[in-house]
Order: sequence, then C-alpha cells, then structure tokens
Amino acid sequence: MEHPENDQQYAALNVNEGVAQPPVINPYLQRRKKAALTVNDYVEGILKGNITILSRAVTLVESQAQEHQQLAQEVIEKCLPYAGKSRRIGITGVPGAGKSTSIDVFGLHVLKQGGKLAVLAIDPSSERTKGSILGDKTRMEKLSVEPNAFIRPSPSAGSLGGVARKTRETIVLCEAAGFDNIFVETVGVGQSETAVHSMVDFFLLIQLAGTGDELQGIKRGIMEMADGIVINKADGDNINRAQLAMAQFRNALHLFPLPPSGWTPEVLCYSGYYELGIPEVWDMIDRYFDFVHKNGYFNLRRQQQEKYWMYESIDETLKANFYNNSLIADMLKVKQQLILDSKQSSFMAAKDVLDVYFNLKEQ
Amino acid sequence: MEHPENDQQYAALNVNEGVAQPPVINPYLQRRKKAALTVNDYVEGILKGNITILSRAVTLVESQAQEHQQLAQEVIEKCLPYAGKSRRIGITGVPGAGKSTSIDVFGLHVLKQGGKLAVLAIDPSSERTKGSILGDKTRMEKLSVEPNAFIRPSPSAGSLGGVARKTRETIVLCEAAGFDNIFVETVGVGQSETAVHSMVDFFLLIQLAGTGDELQGIKRGIMEMADGIVINKADGDNINRAQLAMAQFRNALHLFPLPPSGWTPEVLCYSGYYELGIPEVWDMIDRYFDFVHKNGYFNLRRQQQEKYWMYESIDETLKANFYNNSLIADMLKVKQQLILDSKQSSFMAAKDVLDVYFNLKEQ
Repeated sequence: MEHPENDQQYAALNVNEGVAQPPVINPYLQRRKKAALTVNDYVEGILKGNITILSRAVTLVESQAQEHQQLAQEVIEKCLPYAGKSRRIGITGVPGAGKSTSIDVFGLHVLKQGGKLAVLAIDPSSERTKGSILGDKTRMEKLSVEPNAFIRPSPSAGSLGGVARKTRETIVLCEAAGFDNIFVETVGVGQSETAVHSMVDFFLLIQLAGTGDELQGIKRGIMEMADGIVINKADGDNINRAQLAMAQFRNALHLFPLPPSGWTPEVLCYSGYYELGIPEVWDMIDRYFDFVHKNGYFNLRRQQQEKYWMYESIDETLKANFYNNSLIADMLKVKQQLILDSKQSSFMAAKDVLDVYFNLKEQ
Repeated sequence: MEHPENDQQYAALNVNEGVAQPPVINPYLQRRKKAALTVNDYVEGILKGNITILSRAVTLVESQAQEHQQLAQEVIEKCLPYAGKSRRIGITGVPGAGKSTSIDVFGLHVLKQGGKLAVLAIDPSSERTKGSILGDKTRMEKLSVEPNAFIRPSPSAGSLGGVARKTRETIVLCEAAGFDNIFVETVGVGQSETAVHSMVDFFLLIQLAGTGDELQGIKRGIMEMADGIVINKADGDNINRAQLAMAQFRNALHLFPLPPSGWTPEVLCYSGYYELGIPEVWDMIDRYFDFVHKNGYFNLRRQQQEKYWMYESIDETLKANFYNNSLIADMLKVKQQLILDSKQSSFMAAKDVLDVYFNLKEQ
C-alpha cells in the first residue's frame, strides 16, 4: 500500500541511533511542500480513513504552535460525534518486560481478527530530538508494515497533562478514521499510568517473573489498576518461574476487593517472543468487554472519564495560574522554610500566600 | 484523679444512643461558667501538661466560630516549637476488625512502658449530634480511665480537609503537652486513610481473616500504604485462618517494591480481645522507628508531610474558590452534558469555564 509519508518515516528513523542506515536521498525527489488543508479537508479525509491525512491531523494536534492548536481543536470538535467506537486498551510494564514485542504480537492477533489498530504512547520524558522509545516502529517490526496499523510515538507537551490531552485527542481522530482498536502504551514514569488508566477501557499490566519468588517490582498502585495481569517470557527455562509468579499474583489479587467494574482481574502466562498463549490473553479481554457491556460499566466508565478530564484540565490550570506566579513562587519558598523551622503552621502559611494571591486578582 | 470535665463527659455520653443511662443531674451542681482564658493561659497550661486546659484548647481548635479559630491559631503557633517529639501512629481497618479493642490494648502497652498517649480520630462523616464511633471512650474501657491517656473523638469540620487540619493541630497541642505517643484512628471512609497516612510516622492496618482463603476486602490502595499489617482475632478456632491470612499477606507484599522508607512492611498475628501477641506488634513498631531514625527517613517524611499540607491547603482553597462560584457551578452542569453528548471536548469545555472564571477575577 502506498505510503506517501515514507520520506518522513525515513527522517524519523534517522534519529533513532544505530537503528538504520541513513537513506540515500535522491536529489531529484525533493520533499514535496504539502498543500495547506482546511478543517473540512482534514475531517473528510479522516472520516474516509485516509491515513496520510490522519497523520497530518495528529501532527497538528501535537504541534505547540498557536495557530495549529486552534485548527486542531476545530478538527477534533467535528470528529467528536464519530469517535468512541473502539476498544481502548492501556498497556504498561517495567522496562524490559517486553512491551514492544508483546504489542507487536497482540497487535497482529487483533489485525488477524479483522480489526484496525492504532498504537499510541504516553511518555512525558520524550524529547523530539531523541525520540521516544515507546511507539518506536523499529521495535514493532511486524506491525510497522501492516497497512491497518497506525503507530505514533508519544507527543511532547511539556507536562503530563498536556501529553495526556493530546493522546486523548489523537484517540478521537483515530476512532473517527475507523480504528476500532486503540493501544496506549506507557512506560511507568511518574503518574503516566494513572493518566492512561483514565483514558482506556481495559488496563493490561505486563509482568516478568524474577529469580526465586521475588518479582520485578511494580510501581505501587499499578497492580490495583490492572484489569488483567500477564506474565511474559513463559517459555523455555523460565516456564516454572512464570507459573509461580502467576500463582502469586492470583493469590495477591484475592486480597483486594473487586474493582468498580465488578470484574475479577485475571492473571495469565504468555510468551511474546515465541507467540505462545496469545489467544488466551485476547480471550480474557474479549470476555472483559462482554462483561462490562452487559453490566453497563463500559458506558459508565467512559462517562466518568470524560468528566474526569474536564476537571483535571480545570484543576491543572487553576494550579498553574497560582504556582507559576513569580511573586507567589518566591513567597512559597520562604513559607516552606518557616514551616520546616516550626515557626508557622502549614495552614497559616497557606492562608498568607492565598491572601496575597486573591488580592492580586482583585486589583 | 480529678476530672473537672466530668460533666462534659456525661453530656457527651448522652448522645451515644443506648450506651449509658442518663445521669441524675444534681440541681445544686450546675455546670460552672468557665473563666475565659488568654492565649498565654492556654499555652502555659498546655506546656505544663494540664489536661483540662489542653482539652479546652482542643475544643477551641474544633470550634467553627470565627473568634475561636483566631485564638486557636495563636495558641497553635506558640505551641509549634514544642511539638514534634512523639511517635505518630495511624491505625485503620475495616469496621468490625476490632480497632477499638485493639487500641485499648495497644494503648495500655504503651502506657506500661512509661509513655503518655493521645488517641485521636478522623471520621469525616461524624456529626456532633450523633457523635462519632471512633475515639469513643466507652469502647476503650481500659484507656478511658488511665490518667496518662487523652482520648478525643473526631472533629467535625464539613470537609475531610478541615477535619484533617484540625486533627493535625490537635497533634501539635498534645505533643506540646508532653504526649509522646499519638494514635490517629480512621475508619476507612473516602480518602481519610490517605489523610491519616500523611500525618503519621507509622501506618498500621488491622485486618481480619475471613472464611477460607478470601479475606475481608480492604480498600484498594490501603495495603500499599501500610508499614505494618496485623491480623486480629488470632485466637481459639480462628488461629489457623489468621495464620493463613498472615502468610497470604506476606506473599502479596513480596510483589510490591519497597516503600520509600526502605523498610520491609511486616505482617503479624495477634488477639486484641485475649491480649495475645501485643509485645511482638510493638516490637515491630520499635524496630521501625529505629530503622527510620538511622536512615534519616523519619525526618525526611516529617518534612515532606509539613510541606504537603501547605500545598493541600492551597489546592483545596483554589478549587473551593472556583467550584463554589454559583455562575461557574451552573456552567459546569451545562458543559458536563455537552461532553457526554460528544458535542464538545473536555479540554475546550474546561477552557470555556476557565475563561469565564478568570474574566470574573479581573473585574
């Protein structure tokens, strides 16, 4: 299938050190200057499933330039009524758990069943010049050549809130373009799992079995977010350890109350590299979606998430407006020290700073 | 020992339904109108360990009246330099886990070793007319008659933030009065465990063993907060189940990374009612404090908590100022519906409301 974006993909490959040879640039094949697209051009193209236009729209969303953002919001708003018809699956795991290989293999399984798959990523530490390891096409070898797969690295946005928002907006565009499966990958930096958990329907945790009975530590709080836990590298010598890990996780899950979905999180073994146990993992996910569609939780969770993000946006802006004020920032440093020196209570210190802030606002 | 507050205590008992017979009020013994105390009266009394004055100061802190709050803040500020020299231990568990009996028994153990103990509680659902079940002296029979024990029910304050603040302020007063052990009990309503965890040095989770291998569910997130987990009712018929639960919790804890303290949370069995295993529980707590004093985490955690509460106060007020605005509140209802109907993105909805808010502020 024609990939008019190939020149961009090669350019992107260049920035992944040591991955590919620089291409020979044909001096007679300059990069075409793209015609500017209108809002309607974008929307029509997306709704027709045109990947080139979808790509450009996502680039628009990711752009930090003011005029791009305005255009992006108009495109998003027109795509909103066509969004929502997909399974959104969050995927996390410690570095080295084999996420890329697993996404490659899970993704192919999804495509074989006739779906279209977008693979997105949240990695607040990514910088454009270096490129994020997540959503790196070179590590998802099989998916990257599939016409029905669309892979994007994490947007950069200066803050987790910004990255999360742009990812959610990209989901809207992908869904409007007919992608009925969305993976959102995260590497476990800071609060990114919470962000991903708040934008997906199913949250999958990829774990490894360690040596003996001590498993590779997962970040506190992640286990309770997972709708499914899958132990990778259940192959060869490692099978016994993987099965022991599976038993341990199942026992641990018994100690927690049921999540709000009413679904009992399951634990399975698989091998991404040797492609073992993949159908069973996907069967679990199918059963989850049946379950939450039947008991209404699917819709409830989506609605809660939509509202949650409005309040998150608001809270983030309220705080930014306060903490980015340089007068306030200076005052806070002083107050912190007073508190640590037991000279003022946290409450009164906060009150003093807030008084200054609200007086500023009233001037 | 003389308890000049007896008439108040009887009055408090009256409001706990069915607990005690109404006392016969001697018509010749009217409640004395108390002389008003100055800030210095309060502070001097507290520093001398005068329980009557401490009690009145705590009542002042809990009061919602403006002039009381002002006075309270002055007293607190003067007590601040004398605070901090105690072990603050948070205690939580599901209803029925036997918290009151356990606090009674743990408390006695602490007193036997020569300490002075204040028992406080956080229960945001308490209403003054009904009285909170937590910190209920009638359920801590042994402690309530000990001169070196000071028990207060949860303050009412309209919000968890308010209750948490008043509890922290009460801790300051108790420490200034010479109490070197503070228990803060919480029943697991909403976010109260997070609040308690953020104001104590050690967080103890009291668990029960259930039938078979299914334990009474604990709230998600609590287990990862616990520095120690103790399985109650390890007595009689129940011993085997309790020991099985202990093993299960120990296995589950292996799945998590070490908490920031570097301390490996421990799991023990005990019986509050039959007073078995109490010294072992307290030995664990002693070893924890040795550990975190040695590695510097004790001070680090206290400093983090002090700063945390200033930011919590600020964030709470910023949000209250926004969300309590009736114009904003109306607008949010409309925006929520637009979002649910896919007519506007969460981001743009938030932006619209924020624009209105900040325009209001600039008028």
